[in-house]
Amino acid sequence: MHYIKDFKWKEGMSVSEFVEDLGQVGFQSIELSKAAGAVVRMKKAGAKIFLSFTSNMVTSGLRGFFAQVIRLGMADIVVTTVGGIEEDIMKASGERFRIGSFQADDVELHEKGINRVGNIFVSNESYMKFEDLINPMLMKLYEKKKRWAPSEMFREIGLILEGNEGCEDSILCQATKKGVPIFCPAITDGSFGFHLYLFQQKHPDFVVDVVQDFKNILFTTTPDEAKGVIALGGSISKHHAILATLLNGGAEYAVYLTTASQASGSMSGATTREAKSWGKIKDDADASTVIGDVSVMFPLVMIKAMETLKAEGFLGD
Amino acid sequence: MHYIKDFKWKEGMSVSEFVEDLGQVGFQSIELSKAAGAVVRMKKAGAKIFLSFTSNMVTSGLRGFFAQVIRLGMADIVVTTVGGIEEDIMKASGERFRIGSFQADDVELHEKGINRVGNIFVSNESYMKFEDLINPMLMKLYEKKKRWAPSEMFREIGLILEGNEGCEDSILCQATKKGVPIFCPAITDGSFGFHLYLFQQKHPDFVVDVVQDFKNILFTTTPDEAKGVIALGGSISKHHAILATLLNGGAEYAVYLTTASQASGSMSGATTREAKSWGKIKDDADASTVIGDVSVMFPLVMIKAMETLKAEGFLGD
Amino acid sequence: MHYIKDFKWKEGMSVSEFVEDLGQVGFQSIELSKAAGAVVRMKKAGAKIFLSFTSNMVTSGLRGFFAQVIRLGMADIVVTTVGGIEEDIMKASGERFRIGSFQADDVELHEKGINRVGNIFVSNESYMKFEDLINPMLMKLYEKKKRWAPSEMFREIGLILEGNEGCEDSILCQATKKGVPIFCPAITDGSFGFHLYLFQQKHPDFVVDVVQDFKNILFTTTPDEAKGVIALGGSISKHHAILATLLNGGAEYAVYLTTASQASGSMSGATTREAKSWGKIKDDADASTVIGDVSVMFPLVMIKAMETLKAEGFLGD
Amino acid sequence: MHYIKDFKWKEGMSVSEFVEDLGQVGFQSIELSKAAGAVVRMKKAGAKIFLSFTSNMVTSGLRGFFAQVIRLGMADIVVTTVGGIEEDIMKASGERFRIGSFQADDVELHEKGINRVGNIFVSNESYMKFEDLINPMLMKLYEKKKRWAPSEMFREIGLILEGNEGCEDSILCQATKKGVPIFCPAITDGSFGFHLYLFQQKHPDFVVDVVQDFKNILFTTTPDEAKGVIALGGSISKHHAILATLLNGGAEYAVYLTTASQASGSMSGATTREAKSWGKIKDDADASTVIGDVSVMFPLVMIKAMETLKAEGFLGD
Repeated sequence: MHYIKDFKWKEGMSVSEFVEDLGQVGFQSIELSKAAGAVVRMKKAGAKIFLSFTSNMVTSGLRGFFAQVIRLGMADIVVTTVGGIEEDIMKASGERFRIGSFQADDVELHEKGINRVGNIFVSNESYMKFEDLINPMLMKLYEKKKRWAPSEMFREIGLILEGNEGCEDSILCQATKKGVPIFCPAITDGSFGFHLYLFQQKHPDFVVDVVQDFKNILFTTTPDEAKGVIALGGSISKHHAILATLLNGGAEYAVYLTTASQASGSMSGATTREAKSWGKIKDDADASTVIGDVSVMFPLVMIKAMETLKAEGFLGD
Repeated sequence: MHYIKDFKWKEGMSVSEFVEDLGQVGFQSIELSKAAGAVVRMKKAGAKIFLSFTSNMVTSGLRGFFAQVIRLGMADIVVTTVGGIEEDIMKASGERFRIGSFQADDVELHEKGINRVGNIFVSNESYMKFEDLINPMLMKLYEKKKRWAPSEMFREIGLILEGNEGCEDSILCQATKKGVPIFCPAITDGSFGFHLYLFQQKHPDFVVDVVQDFKNILFTTTPDEAKGVIALGGSISKHHAILATLLNGGAEYAVYLTTASQASGSMSGATTREAKSWGKIKDDADASTVIGDVSVMFPLVMIKAMETLKAEGFLGD
Repeated sequence: MHYIKDFKWKEGMSVSEFVEDLGQVGFQSIELSKAAGAVVRMKKAGAKIFLSFTSNMVTSGLRGFFAQVIRLGMADIVVTTVGGIEEDIMKASGERFRIGSFQADDVELHEKGINRVGNIFVSNESYMKFEDLINPMLMKLYEKKKRWAPSEMFREIGLILEGNEGCEDSILCQATKKGVPIFCPAITDGSFGFHLYLFQQKHPDFVVDVVQDFKNILFTTTPDEAKGVIALGGSISKHHAILATLLNGGAEYAVYLTTASQASGSMSGATTREAKSWGKIKDDADASTVIGDVSVMFPLVMIKAMETLKAEGFLGD
Repeated sequence: MHYIKDFKWKEGMSVSEFVEDLGQVGFQSIELSKAAGAVVRMKKAGAKIFLSFTSNMVTSGLRGFFAQVIRLGMADIVVTTVGGIEEDIMKASGERFRIGSFQADDVELHEKGINRVGNIFVSNESYMKFEDLINPMLMKLYEKKKRWAPSEMFREIGLILEGNEGCEDSILCQATKKGVPIFCPAITDGSFGFHLYLFQQKHPDFVVDVVQDFKNILFTTTPDEAKGVIALGGSISKHHAILATLLNGGAEYAVYLTTASQASGSMSGATTREAKSWGKIKDDADASTVIGDVSVMFPLVMIKAMETLKAEGFLGD
């Protein structure tokens, strides 16, 4: 039997101690602490870890943290939406986004060429620079071969970015270095799609083969391997990660962080419990759903998990 | 100046009267009533209407309503996730889903071969029948040509379904009949993707060309045409619909129905106000965001709009 | 076994048909339809019905509907927060609130003497008139006796309002007419509290006896009687209603409508399932939790229930 | 101009560094960091700080943290719901609550005499012990005088609890020691109310004077003093705290932490922006609304604020 315990601030307390103590506080703090435990266990069991996130998280400063998480071996397969790919490329090339406000005057922003994502501002210039960056990359790819699976494209782009100063904080760059494939089942749903279209107009034999990537994600793991899922937010990135584990017998470990509730039957609100009915997660899996903003909850979960793993010799450098 | 007015039940009151009266109640009832007005205005202005929804809504009984909405000319372009395509095909072929419960025992369901989507149950058999249905369809497509854009595939499938008894309630079938293209930027993210992969293994020259569909959605409208967006829920379907309007100068009319809030910067929570900063929606657009479950809110908005349009001679039969 | 059924609009369809059909749609539409059924059953079983709501709902046009619901015998005990009492008195005396906007400039509103409640505007004048109204009422009460339970006060005020033209739409007035007690466990938490304080300064022997009202609400029902709860939103009104049923053995019927989720352990998010652990609701009770905005969901539930009851001869005139 | 910055884990990083870095991440992490800044500024400006919370937070392990926050001089006035008072008394007398689960079988819990609050379990015994504790306390109070304002009662109970071992973690005990009044505008809405009722049956001249407490909270501050509000969750505790500041000219500083959105016009979802229209918060106030679970967000905000204040010599021991 475990008891609720009065939480107390200790001067200079670390994030790790903090999350430890939250485990006895109540409501989402307990779930958060459980989620950190599940991440520790999936890593120690040698599970292949699927990490899924949506592009708004790459718009935020979590982007460098995703790169770090990949670099430290805490993600074996990444699934995301294409906006995240675009913005990682922009940022790897020096673009910076501004801290804005949820209450900004959007008509005024539009006149100034500023696009709002919650309380983050992205300028039109950032998108124009993306255009300058992506076109030579597509040409380089095309010169190699005509038919590309998206994950292959991202690996190549990761290689190109390796020369950049910004490689350390780049998701694509670190993923390429670590051999971590990045899947993006809706590669055309963004500025990237627009440039692919323009490129294909000039080069009609250029083909993006999304079906090939279904095979690729399927073969990242086998039914015999232990599998873990860390799904942030919802959308197709979450769905695709758990679909890939389903087809290999389901995940042994799962952590979902989301702000959505299950009430509307959406993917973002779907719980680890519901996933069991599908076999997406095994019946006796070590699973946890935390309700809360990923920009706060995800680093808390991962820092706690990584400090624990580090102390026990399970984390790379 | 408009005043809040005490709402009163009148025996036998119609949905149309009800939504009319909600316009003076407060909170989301007012926004709902405004949304119905925006739908009326977008139709009367002859705007091309983008309707986006996610697959869970097709799991629900909204599926037949989507088909009806398309049949009545209230949607000119549809954007959805692939689960919705799969389930429309299943249902058009006689499969039925069961009313379940959010509190069901998921491990028990799994043992019985039942998959839960919120409070709806889908059996494994339904997915097996999908397998039997999709394979001959893919072969038919392949015999015609080797390279397909997803929207072209869905049109062909719609034609095949026309023979079925279930055509009236089928989204694909009605869309094909009305010449309404269906876009699905992540066609591999589901059972459909799995079967495409198996098919491609046997027929390596079979290509699904998602880039081609970027062109197709771009050319559904022009910058000169009035455009409207009705976005249900979030995900890439919402994003793709508004991206397509952005690239043609932005929408003059927009209605978003969602349960998500803007607090986490997600696409599902993104408001019509935020969309203005991007130019996804014009600065002076007629735009409305309603927070609530689509399964209740969407039919309320559309019934009110369609009854008004019918009365004024703007609705087809 | 019950199946999901494709929803279809029928021209001129009534709210009652609409909610009936929602029962086979999915997600919150099903829960909504179940809730209407539970209300029908609690009424037909002759259960004493507790109706709880918060003051923002009285700010909205639901206020007249609450009065109608009480008049038609669908509520036997009312529990609310004091803002609702204040605003019912204001409105019964001719004050009107304006339809506003969630995006209004609040600093500008403040300069104009306008107070915002979501998308409803309440002017400072309305509060000043409340001052003019409440003071003679308190004097009248004081002249009768010195020690008052809040529910007794509201009954007296209801009697005073009976002379007003606005009696039909007034919660206090209709409750008094029907002998329905109104409880408000935090009577000082609002403008009413301020005026009670000023009055007590002049008349120190004037006492508001909240403890007496605990007895009063306890004695509205007995353990032997069937009890039902319709709780809208959260706060102390919800808690107090279910506390009163708990102390009499728990409710046989319960319908909760709320926008809050259970994730934070709050009263607003507490489900009918959780209530069973407390005995607030009986283990085998007929209970339903609907997630959604009360301004839309409550009239839908009640109209369906009342039309059904009317048709079967269980509703008063 | 401030930029989004890639977040990076540093081994052993402190909560204070963590929250500092979150200030450049995005979405709620930025708001959280801003909130910590507002708390620092309100304290340094010598503002009188109103802290409001709901009883579920006292059910959780935040209870000891509230006591610590009070002891360190970070709250000058406390407003809460009565469940929090009850549970503080139980816990100060040795009762312990258990860590449970949101998915627990509530009917089974009920059979075992266990009450669920989200993922926390409270046994019936705890309530029985409360009965044993509160009755002699009420008798002690009654012997002193017959008419009590709730805040006076809590101060007396705090004095009684000072003898207990558990005083350090008790909200009532620490508040009494520091001269911090506790207000509870709905003192009867709980087990406390039931025992007050039973006591009053035997001692009809015993009066709980809630009107007197309106005066008391009004006089805790003056229009000339700087005022700050830290409101956790919603309910009457939030409303009462900001009402008290409104009547003294509005707060200069405000931090709201909540999971509710403004969409339904509820008090829990009401933002600091809306509060400005009322004058509850001054037009140019330093105000912040954070959306998230209080059990995680509140300690993050306060630890960051207290470490900063400590470093600059503004925090007591």
